[in-house]
Amino acid sequence: MIRAAIMEKPLAKVRIVDLPEPKLEDGAALLETIYSEVCGTDVHLFNGRLAGVPYPIIPGHINVGRITQTNGPVYDVDGNLLHPGDVVTFLDVHETCHNCWYCLVAKASTRCPHRKVYGITYGVQDGILGGWSEKIYLKPGVKIVKLPWQIKPEAFIGGGCGLPTAFHAVEQAGIKLGDSVVIQGCGPVGLNAAILAQLAGALQVIVVGAPALRLKLAEDFGVGAVINIETMDTADRIAAVKELTGGRGADVVIEATGVPSALNEGMAMVRDAGTYIIVGQYTDNGEVTFNPHLDLNKKHLTIKGVWGIDLSHFYRSIQIMAKYHQRFAWERLISRHYSLTDINQALEDVEHCRVIKAVIAPNGK
Amino acid sequence: MIRAAIMEKPLAKVRIVDLPEPKLEDGAALLETIYSEVCGTDVHLFNGRLAGVPYPIIPGHINVGRITQTNGPVYDVDGNLLHPGDVVTFLDVHETCHNCWYCLVAKASTRCPHRKVYGITYGVQDGILGGWSEKIYLKPGVKIVKLPWQIKPEAFIGGGCGLPTAFHAVEQAGIKLGDSVVIQGCGPVGLNAAILAQLAGALQVIVVGAPALRLKLAEDFGVGAVINIETMDTADRIAAVKELTGGRGADVVIEATGVPSALNEGMAMVRDAGTYIIVGQYTDNGEVTFNPHLDLNKKHLTIKGVWGIDLSHFYRSIQIMAKYHQRFAWERLISRHYSLTDINQALEDVEHCRVIKAVIAPNGK
Amino acid sequence: MIRAAIMEKPLAKVRIVDLPEPKLEDGAALLETIYSEVCGTDVHLFNGRLAGVPYPIIPGHINVGRITQTNGPVYDVDGNLLHPGDVVTFLDVHETCHNCWYCLVAKASTRCPHRKVYGITYGVQDGILGGWSEKIYLKPGVKIVKLPWQIKPEAFIGGGCGLPTAFHAVEQAGIKLGDSVVIQGCGPVGLNAAILAQLAGALQVIVVGAPALRLKLAEDFGVGAVINIETMDTADRIAAVKELTGGRGADVVIEATGVPSALNEGMAMVRDAGTYIIVGQYTDNGEVTFNPHLDLNKKHLTIKGVWGIDLSHFYRSIQIMAKYHQRFAWERLISRHYSLTDINQALEDVEHCRVIKAVIAPNGK
Amino acid sequence: MIRAAIMEKPLAKVRIVDLPEPKLEDGAALLETIYSEVCGTDVHLFNGRLAGVPYPIIPGHINVGRITQTNGPVYDVDGNLLHPGDVVTFLDVHETCHNCWYCLVAKASTRCPHRKVYGITYGVQDGILGGWSEKIYLKPGVKIVKLPWQIKPEAFIGGGCGLPTAFHAVEQAGIKLGDSVVIQGCGPVGLNAAILAQLAGALQVIVVGAPALRLKLAEDFGVGAVINIETMDTADRIAAVKELTGGRGADVVIEATGVPSALNEGMAMVRDAGTYIIVGQYTDNGEVTFNPHLDLNKKHLTIKGVWGIDLSHFYRSIQIMAKYHQRFAWERLISRHYSLTDINQALEDVEHCRVIKAVIAPNGK
Repeated sequence: MIRAAIMEKPLAKVRIVDLPEPKLEDGAALLETIYSEVCGTDVHLFNGRLAGVPYPIIPGHINVGRITQTNGPVYDVDGNLLHPGDVVTFLDVHETCHNCWYCLVAKASTRCPHRKVYGITYGVQDGILGGWSEKIYLKPGVKIVKLPWQIKPEAFIGGGCGLPTAFHAVEQAGIKLGDSVVIQGCGPVGLNAAILAQLAGALQVIVVGAPALRLKLAEDFGVGAVINIETMDTADRIAAVKELTGGRGADVVIEATGVPSALNEGMAMVRDAGTYIIVGQYTDNGEVTFNPHLDLNKKHLTIKGVWGIDLSHFYRSIQIMAKYHQRFAWERLISRHYSLTDINQALEDVEHCRVIKAVIAPNGK
Repeated sequence: MIRAAIMEKPLAKVRIVDLPEPKLEDGAALLETIYSEVCGTDVHLFNGRLAGVPYPIIPGHINVGRITQTNGPVYDVDGNLLHPGDVVTFLDVHETCHNCWYCLVAKASTRCPHRKVYGITYGVQDGILGGWSEKIYLKPGVKIVKLPWQIKPEAFIGGGCGLPTAFHAVEQAGIKLGDSVVIQGCGPVGLNAAILAQLAGALQVIVVGAPALRLKLAEDFGVGAVINIETMDTADRIAAVKELTGGRGADVVIEATGVPSALNEGMAMVRDAGTYIIVGQYTDNGEVTFNPHLDLNKKHLTIKGVWGIDLSHFYRSIQIMAKYHQRFAWERLISRHYSLTDINQALEDVEHCRVIKAVIAPNGK
Repeated sequence: MIRAAIMEKPLAKVRIVDLPEPKLEDGAALLETIYSEVCGTDVHLFNGRLAGVPYPIIPGHINVGRITQTNGPVYDVDGNLLHPGDVVTFLDVHETCHNCWYCLVAKASTRCPHRKVYGITYGVQDGILGGWSEKIYLKPGVKIVKLPWQIKPEAFIGGGCGLPTAFHAVEQAGIKLGDSVVIQGCGPVGLNAAILAQLAGALQVIVVGAPALRLKLAEDFGVGAVINIETMDTADRIAAVKELTGGRGADVVIEATGVPSALNEGMAMVRDAGTYIIVGQYTDNGEVTFNPHLDLNKKHLTIKGVWGIDLSHFYRSIQIMAKYHQRFAWERLISRHYSLTDINQALEDVEHCRVIKAVIAPNGK
Repeated sequence: MIRAAIMEKPLAKVRIVDLPEPKLEDGAALLETIYSEVCGTDVHLFNGRLAGVPYPIIPGHINVGRITQTNGPVYDVDGNLLHPGDVVTFLDVHETCHNCWYCLVAKASTRCPHRKVYGITYGVQDGILGGWSEKIYLKPGVKIVKLPWQIKPEAFIGGGCGLPTAFHAVEQAGIKLGDSVVIQGCGPVGLNAAILAQLAGALQVIVVGAPALRLKLAEDFGVGAVINIETMDTADRIAAVKELTGGRGADVVIEATGVPSALNEGMAMVRDAGTYIIVGQYTDNGEVTFNPHLDLNKKHLTIKGVWGIDLSHFYRSIQIMAKYHQRFAWERLISRHYSLTDINQALEDVEHCRVIKAVIAPNGK
């Protein structure tokens, strides 16, 4: 039997159940979970704030584990044949159809209506398709990546889903060599964006957020300046960004807060004709009011909403992590490890920002 | 003496004055005005809604006239030596410095702090630098374009400032061959955008606006569908656009209304991962409220504010007009001609949307 | 039994065979061929100039036909359920894996190593997977498009594979509204590029090619100027293009000749800092010599090789054809119809440029 | 009097002359030269291989010096008022007109016909407009940048003209976070490109060149692999790049050799659908022969010629140098200092690759 954590419905405490070992289809694999994460999305799942979730579900979309079994030859995306014992991760996004208008004509696969996500849009009745479980069932065709030797499972889960999400945001930002970049927010997405913006050519990275401990981590990760929202008001924050950027504002601002009102501050922090990336508004937190003439049109701004990831973001994030594993200690993003039975505590800690990242170790650390 | 219309200050009636003939600097030219226009910007000037205007001013930023005098050789941007009698137009934007960070590093010359605009940011004390006047002083270095023979002055002024503004909007939209495009608004910018979107490769152009007469003109200009906002409510308009676009919404939406609330409707009319161009919010008409998660982030939208023009938009607009002068009768955008002494009437007619375009003929039609 | 034309091996005459009716897999369909084409690629196949072809094969990659049978529900890419009698076409490219580095990380699916093409890289042993046959087997997952009512099968096959190939070339060219464009070559790809360049925003399209009859067709299709290579030498042709483009050369040149030496002429016809698209070098016709300093570096050129198509090019080409079916009579590209038994003649006619496009009607016209 | 080195005509030894102190126009400045460089371009000037050079000239296009005098207020591009004693550099490119079709419509100012370059396209009769001189005359409007405190003159001249040239090449390459990049050549442009490619997001940078000493420097600058062309033949070099890049070739290759035949090797080193930047072919070194089908079309390559720089490249290069002055010791690119009287020796040393960079110190080191 496999122990797994089940989210029955919104606002119901997660409970632990025993599920039978699945029978593997041709091309499927079974993974012994090393780590899964509890991220903001899971809090949204708990609070019932995502549409179209087929409760009951087994959450846990970003995971790392050890192959225990395959049915027939199974390969990773680089074409490596996988064997029991291999430490791997996999893209949570699955079943993108490559057959519809969005996939093939618009080439916007994140908008494919057939797209499914492990730990979010699969229900328990679909299988053990989430990481809050001792084992995870990898359906045929799931995109698996063997973890390079430079990446410890601990570092991988430290990067978590924030890393490829930030990768997508930084890619869309089109950062040019020498740009100044402001990151709003210093949760997992914001901190990863702060790392990646530097690697993508930013001359100057400024992180705006709180609390001080997270900003300290941003500084340790090499950002040039931090602005603490607990000790400085909005007007002063905007003034501080202007002062750091020749009076103009930043070439690029990346929003990673989830708070609608952050948009007003962000628009004011971008320079005229600059770019503003909105990646943090992953769930409905209400509205925001702005002046389209003063804030957008006259400033000649470009604003891009970034949502979800595809394999390119996931794959390249792993390569980046392998290369820079000594320069950036991603495991420092982890505040605390939890067992399966502690998950309700983990959810609470994430919701109240007591931790940067909460990691689940279903088989013990 | 030269008769000119002066806007003394916001909300004061325009009055006619006689100004002395200017002495020409080296490289300057004098133009006998054939047509100037009264556009929405002039109503904003009258109402005092633009910042930094050095009243009193002579309005009239887009003009066509006849060279009467030059001091030394004066060339147009194609290198043609100009002679008295030549019918020309000129870019209203002047004194972009090509020396500052915005001009040279950001390459966003519309944001150059030294930029001046004929008819808007020059005062009477700077000279006869607006088209509501019998003659216009062309300072040395002003970018002049000799009108191709295919373009009658009447057609040129029919295109007016809406044409290069729409050109800039369409350029920023990055319309791809086969795209579906919605234009919000059927004033001069909207109607020109409807023309240019077709020429830029749109498969389908839908114009949303009013009144019926303008929509009829849009249809005569070849757009595939029009939606009348006077007879259909917002929800139905959005549904109509969806129905016309395979249930998805348009690849590109171009806002040319000036009404903040149009943004909500526009965001709903773009397909997921599509592009929304905001060109109509040229003056402060208040705020708009939206939901950044539902309207922007989850839809993966790109939104671009487009403001002002540079020579490329002006120059290429004229080439387009010369080529397509038989297919599109731009003079049909003109509702009525006015003499200098009728300008207050013209302003009123534009403000109350009684005309699509009001044209001033300072030396008689 | 199904009559089909088989190319046994390079340089062997095509011969007609009778093949048994195939049994349909789940999700497969059978098509009664209305038209297939004989294009330059088929001549290359005959001459053994393409690598990796699994002779014997049934050629014919672009086809239009009538559904005769389906096994289970089969849908087109717009989600329409297909029925016997429906007139459809389908993308020849199949089995792109959406699983490899090229598909998922580089997002360059034309370089997917698993990619297969009907009529080219499938052998007879794989099934009736080419259009020179009374019927064609559509494997499950083949991307089918129901022909819009505006498109007659005759017009569709007139566009043929030249249309989506030209679409891809024009897309890569990034033609901007108002650009001048030179097309080298007036075969099916060149003539289609001449149509699409106009629709994509070119102000001026110049076609350089021969013979006069094809250039006449280009003119009928609306291009502004043609240059006959039979009556003008290279230097004069370059001079003529310069004269037509303000002395500078064209913003964009698209090569669609297949002749290596055309590259020298093309590079000389692009303006400095312009774009040169190479789409015609589909098979190995030898080498070309150029001066990288004078021809490329000092001119600041961008050169792009364009190869193959994906569904977006195919799908949007059909939409374009439906919209502009009255403005452009694509059936005029067809010089002659052939029956299955005349195919050797058709190949010879295409090879010797006696026809623009040769069309096969396997079931009679 | 001011001592300056004059290149009378091609192949004549440079000689030293005494020139009178210039009288400063309004807005002009005089600079006491600290360092100038002798770069490959100067060897081309000596050998008469650049077109349109108005001999006799004072070479020396990239320079750093100390303001000794200004006539009226003179500002740098950031708006700082300059004073005697300030250590500055300036963009060699001047008189770009911002008035012609290339400047304003094509927005390709490097192709402006009015463009002038200090040390290359100004003659002695135009003034002391080159750096091989004790002093340099800065004409009004020359774009001056005050050297940030982090940059020693020695480091600045170590970067020299190779740094902004490489910046332009890397910008055009559009390097994406995680790309693999090959640099062909390890002269000043190649080594600077190796630095900047890393900073712009390359996961892996491979330098192909010689001799070993320069490759050692590339390794010290952090590149992941070097390939010595003196000890490995072309086929092995290509194989080595393939092996380092998953069998595919690099996402981006940047040519910085000046040798035409390098293009064949470079095209083979790029992956399918990758990008090849040609920046090294700055002078006419003859022709190259390639197969357009196999090398370009079938590979779906993009090739871009990069020529010259504009202020954005120069300005941002200085900012990059200021930020990374501790990580990269640009002064290590300097092999030897020369006095004005040693210039003929310096030219010979550069021509025979005895030095990476030769630096002139006209007023003594």
